[in-house]
Amino acid sequence: MLHFDCDYLEGTHPLIMERLLKTNLEQTPGYGFDRYTIDAKEKIKQACQCPDAEIHFLIGGTQTNATVIDALLRPYQGVLAPTTGHINVHESGAIEASGHKVIALPQHNGKVSANDVDRYITDFYADPTFGHMVAPGMLYLSYPTEYGTLYSRSELENLSAVCKKHGIPLYLDGARLGYALASDDADMSLADIARLCDVFYIGGTKVGALFGEAVVATRPGILGNFFPIVKQHGALLAKGRLLGLQFDTLFTDNLYLRIAKHAIRMAMKLKCGFADKGYRFYIDSPTNQQFVILDNNTRERLSHHATFETWGHTDSGDAIVRFATSWATREEDIDELLHWL
Amino acid sequence: MLHFDCDYLEGTHPLIMERLLKTNLEQTPGYGFDRYTIDAKEKIKQACQCPDAEIHFLIGGTQTNATVIDALLRPYQGVLAPTTGHINVHESGAIEASGHKVIALPQHNGKVSANDVDRYITDFYADPTFGHMVAPGMLYLSYPTEYGTLYSRSELENLSAVCKKHGIPLYLDGARLGYALASDDADMSLADIARLCDVFYIGGTKVGALFGEAVVATRPGILGNFFPIVKQHGALLAKGRLLGLQFDTLFTDNLYLRIAKHAIRMAMKLKCGFADKGYRFYIDSPTNQQFVILDNNTRERLSHHATFETWGHTDSGDAIVRFATSWATREEDIDELLHWL
Amino acid sequence: MLHFDCDYLEGTHPLIMERLLKTNLEQTPGYGFDRYTIDAKEKIKQACQCPDAEIHFLIGGTQTNATVIDALLRPYQGVLAPTTGHINVHESGAIEASGHKVIALPQHNGKVSANDVDRYITDFYADPTFGHMVAPGMLYLSYPTEYGTLYSRSELENLSAVCKKHGIPLYLDGARLGYALASDDADMSLADIARLCDVFYIGGTKVGALFGEAVVATRPGILGNFFPIVKQHGALLAKGRLLGLQFDTLFTDNLYLRIAKHAIRMAMKLKCGFADKGYRFYIDSPTNQQFVILDNNTRERLSHHATFETWGHTDSGDAIVRFATSWATREEDIDELLHWL
Amino acid sequence: MLHFDCDYLEGTHPLIMERLLKTNLEQTPGYGFDRYTIDAKEKIKQACQCPDAEIHFLIGGTQTNATVIDALLRPYQGVLAPTTGHINVHESGAIEASGHKVIALPQHNGKVSANDVDRYITDFYADPTFGHMVAPGMLYLSYPTEYGTLYSRSELENLSAVCKKHGIPLYLDGARLGYALASDDADMSLADIARLCDVFYIGGTKVGALFGEAVVATRPGILGNFFPIVKQHGALLAKGRLLGLQFDTLFTDNLYLRIAKHAIRMAMKLKCGFADKGYRFYIDSPTNQQFVILDNNTRERLSHHATFETWGHTDSGDAIVRFATSWATREEDIDELLHWL
Repeated sequence: MLHFDCDYLEGTHPLIMERLLKTNLEQTPGYGFDRYTIDAKEKIKQACQCPDAEIHFLIGGTQTNATVIDALLRPYQGVLAPTTGHINVHESGAIEASGHKVIALPQHNGKVSANDVDRYITDFYADPTFGHMVAPGMLYLSYPTEYGTLYSRSELENLSAVCKKHGIPLYLDGARLGYALASDDADMSLADIARLCDVFYIGGTKVGALFGEAVVATRPGILGNFFPIVKQHGALLAKGRLLGLQFDTLFTDNLYLRIAKHAIRMAMKLKCGFADKGYRFYIDSPTNQQFVILDNNTRERLSHHATFETWGHTDSGDAIVRFATSWATREEDIDELLHWL
Repeated sequence: MLHFDCDYLEGTHPLIMERLLKTNLEQTPGYGFDRYTIDAKEKIKQACQCPDAEIHFLIGGTQTNATVIDALLRPYQGVLAPTTGHINVHESGAIEASGHKVIALPQHNGKVSANDVDRYITDFYADPTFGHMVAPGMLYLSYPTEYGTLYSRSELENLSAVCKKHGIPLYLDGARLGYALASDDADMSLADIARLCDVFYIGGTKVGALFGEAVVATRPGILGNFFPIVKQHGALLAKGRLLGLQFDTLFTDNLYLRIAKHAIRMAMKLKCGFADKGYRFYIDSPTNQQFVILDNNTRERLSHHATFETWGHTDSGDAIVRFATSWATREEDIDELLHWL
Repeated sequence: MLHFDCDYLEGTHPLIMERLLKTNLEQTPGYGFDRYTIDAKEKIKQACQCPDAEIHFLIGGTQTNATVIDALLRPYQGVLAPTTGHINVHESGAIEASGHKVIALPQHNGKVSANDVDRYITDFYADPTFGHMVAPGMLYLSYPTEYGTLYSRSELENLSAVCKKHGIPLYLDGARLGYALASDDADMSLADIARLCDVFYIGGTKVGALFGEAVVATRPGILGNFFPIVKQHGALLAKGRLLGLQFDTLFTDNLYLRIAKHAIRMAMKLKCGFADKGYRFYIDSPTNQQFVILDNNTRERLSHHATFETWGHTDSGDAIVRFATSWATREEDIDELLHWL
Repeated sequence: MLHFDCDYLEGTHPLIMERLLKTNLEQTPGYGFDRYTIDAKEKIKQACQCPDAEIHFLIGGTQTNATVIDALLRPYQGVLAPTTGHINVHESGAIEASGHKVIALPQHNGKVSANDVDRYITDFYADPTFGHMVAPGMLYLSYPTEYGTLYSRSELENLSAVCKKHGIPLYLDGARLGYALASDDADMSLADIARLCDVFYIGGTKVGALFGEAVVATRPGILGNFFPIVKQHGALLAKGRLLGLQFDTLFTDNLYLRIAKHAIRMAMKLKCGFADKGYRFYIDSPTNQQFVILDNNTRERLSHHATFETWGHTDSGDAIVRFATSWATREEDIDELLHWL
């Protein structure tokens, strides 16, 4: 059986596993005060060209979103996000559990537009009853989005400008950041992201790490007294060096981007293969998630050979199916999948 | 200047004020253990034809919604509501502050449809990732809605049936319940409401009381150990008899409905007056809130004679303006307003 | 039957009732934007000799504590309070419901000492694991305390100095503030309180009002964007003028203090009466709550003539019983009670 | 430099590392639906002799405590715990962040007594104002305690009986459970724990795993719909098999207990070594944490050779110092440490 359900099927990149093995019995202080963590932070700052950035390592994506958002907002504020944003759909209400409303804005191919954000905030403060409404306290977006799509640099610049105009921070969920940066369609570098966002995270869980996400606060101090907030959210890893060591490895010799590029190459091969055989796509994704439309017979037939996620159905009843590649996808698996089309 | 901004401009019905005055120096136990409160509960149960109902008195609407919803849900559950529901728009995130997501469903003239609720819940549990999503734990609706519209009895029966089918409670926000029941378009009695809802509240603040809302739990026990939940929400009035005494008065000799009928008569007079002069309405409301479309000149001109709320604008740029009547509205004020058209 | 259970048995001072009656059908804007509220704020600022103070009116004590504390703290911070503090004992976890720990310090006759506060905070930051502990973000105390006792001016000055030294706000719960200020033992005025506290509230519910508490923030801005926080806590009264009008009356011609003095006179008469007959006291209270030790026979016998609260028992098994007087206590009731001793 | 600061200095037991390495590129479903997780659950049920138990794997201790407690309590309930309980001291308010008060009871060598629990709950419901207080909804204790001490079987039986009597669940924090079970002083097996507790967790982070805690609910259903609660707390590991595989290894061939025994042997050697040289102990601990009293000269001198934690000071000013051993402690390090005494 072939597996394309998601991008966290395997463990970690062999170079990381090798270092975990090699350092396994070393004794290091806990909670991120070890030298691997310090080194990793340094390398990430360099990769972001943001020497003043504050870096924090957390364990998983939902946890990172909930913790960062709680740190950025006052209790009566909410977070703007596209309706399809992960925090609005797939986090079991983790944001609301900290008391904050997710204010859903229209999505366009998974993206929120600067215009919509600007209009929402402008209308909000023009409404005489705004004191009774949840104040928009920050903007959340994903890059790539939950549909695999990408913001262009100018789109992100506009969003960043709108946030600055209204004095709210822009937070970017980079659970799959590597797969965005590695895409041929991307016109942004990590340094661009760091320049345009107030806070973002570099996803490790889906891009080569065993687990772990690196939070980058590009405006020092913006997350306040973050350590106890992390602890309070149950997000503080006792053996913090596990996170440091993984990110240190990912940001040595550009490993993060290199392995992401492999995932993209695999995704593009899969995409071309489906397209060549006349399949249509639900959305035109340039990253590692591909959303293919399958009639139900084909879907049933393929399911004997491969696992994948069914995301929904088109109006005409065909299935919308997601195939995900990753840094670990084997080219022969793609070949075999295409063979079964 | 005439005032039609809202339905809580004045104090309380003179009969209530008279009793407050008369009993002012009586000594009664606190927190609702006095005989006025006990009497009021009995009268409400009779009016609801629901002898087993549990009655609780709280102070205001947002507080009541937040407290009841917190009592009905488990932490990981959310509350279904139309996008225009008061809890989704005008409660400053009080629901989220207790950790619960408001799951917004499409609104149709301010109402949610049984079909939409059924489909949402069905689709939810059909989604293989539902464990990562906020479980729909109850349904919230307002009667009358925030747009002044009414559910018909068959609509509420369908909503009630859908909730039963899926095993979730139906909660009705009756901040203006009197103005619904008193409307010529209403085909439901208080007993119907009690039969079809698991929990609802009878709004006092906007319908004759100085303040206060009466929560009716028609399935005893459904609110659990409600007393400490009320206290924890800061919703326990020390001098509880103030609430009991007001509702005792409102439910003596049918006062609640009688004064509500006055508000409706005033609203209908206002509505006809506007219609006769060719004004259009944003929505066809049979209750005490009337939403009139005014071009900006007229709006400006009228604003020298009367206060009212501007709710928004039509696509063509005209203002949508709300005029609210209440139990206290004077007929001569309506006459004078119509004179200025 | 005589009643000494608590200080909120009756309604409101007749002058307030008279104004409620007189203004009952006036039309005023909601939510505290009316002129009565504006006037009341002005009078309170004058009484506090604090022209820059921000004044907000809320409905009840637990609600006020929860709302103010939530406004003052960051999510990871807690509130220091004596173990006997109302927020630590009798608010059903309302503070924790907003996510904040009540950090209990030793109490001495219901009071917290500046030394204990200083040592706690100093030790906290000296502990290498403090990042894993709840940071002390503010100090809460009651004046008078839950035992009826009073801080002296120098005690409050020391507490205020310690808070300043450590950069945390001092918040004073004045649910019975009038009964403190009116006590012969008090060596502080309202202006002293305002000078020494960052935020406090002037209790109305127990001192002459029907309900209502006046929050005084002596450092403008310290409560942040307080309006939506109040709304989110369900603490925003629709007919805000009810609060304004009550406090306007209480702060006209010194009514608040004058009626409090009556309560104190009644309490002292009761205290002397018990003492004269040889009764002992659990605590020496100079305010309106008197804690008398009764053997169980006497307690049983008195309970046929009067209601009172049993607070606990001494080690030898006698009952500790609270008698509360208020602005409304009738002297003949005291006489009759003493007669039954 | 020797390191005795804590019991999570190293990575994981070599057998676990070996399996992580070996399975690294296997493709498994996420979120704990893999076969390693299923196997691990089966083995834990057998070790607990509790075939009906529900097992869940989480990542860290604070996270586990916050998630389990939130699942067990209703919003208005609190958790009883000794003042020294980890949840009361070192979790940055994670319990309160979910809205629950930690109700601190007296500690005796880190333990709570059945008598104290019984009296607290009995007194609570005897207090006429209990509706205004935080209801005790469960009992939390640690085994071993934060001081390294152990409950005897009869103590735990008494605590269990008191909890049953009052109808509240007993939850045992087993962050270092292995080090309790492996102690010569322990008179309980895992099966005893399972029989006496409603929920407990088997700590992995400190006892051989890279990270991870195994929650055992011995009464199925008691945790309710736990999956979304875990997700909401940010505690759901994407690559769930990492947890399953670790616990599968720990519960194969009794590894968990065997490696714990090593830690105990090392701790006893250290303890005897100190005792032999005349050192006194702050507490008599039979487990892997040893609390030694050092005068400040000795403490200073030793700190050049070894790291350890200073927990406080005795009344006479000597330091209370903690030395922790673990499954990974090397005997030669103990020898060398003792050499420096």
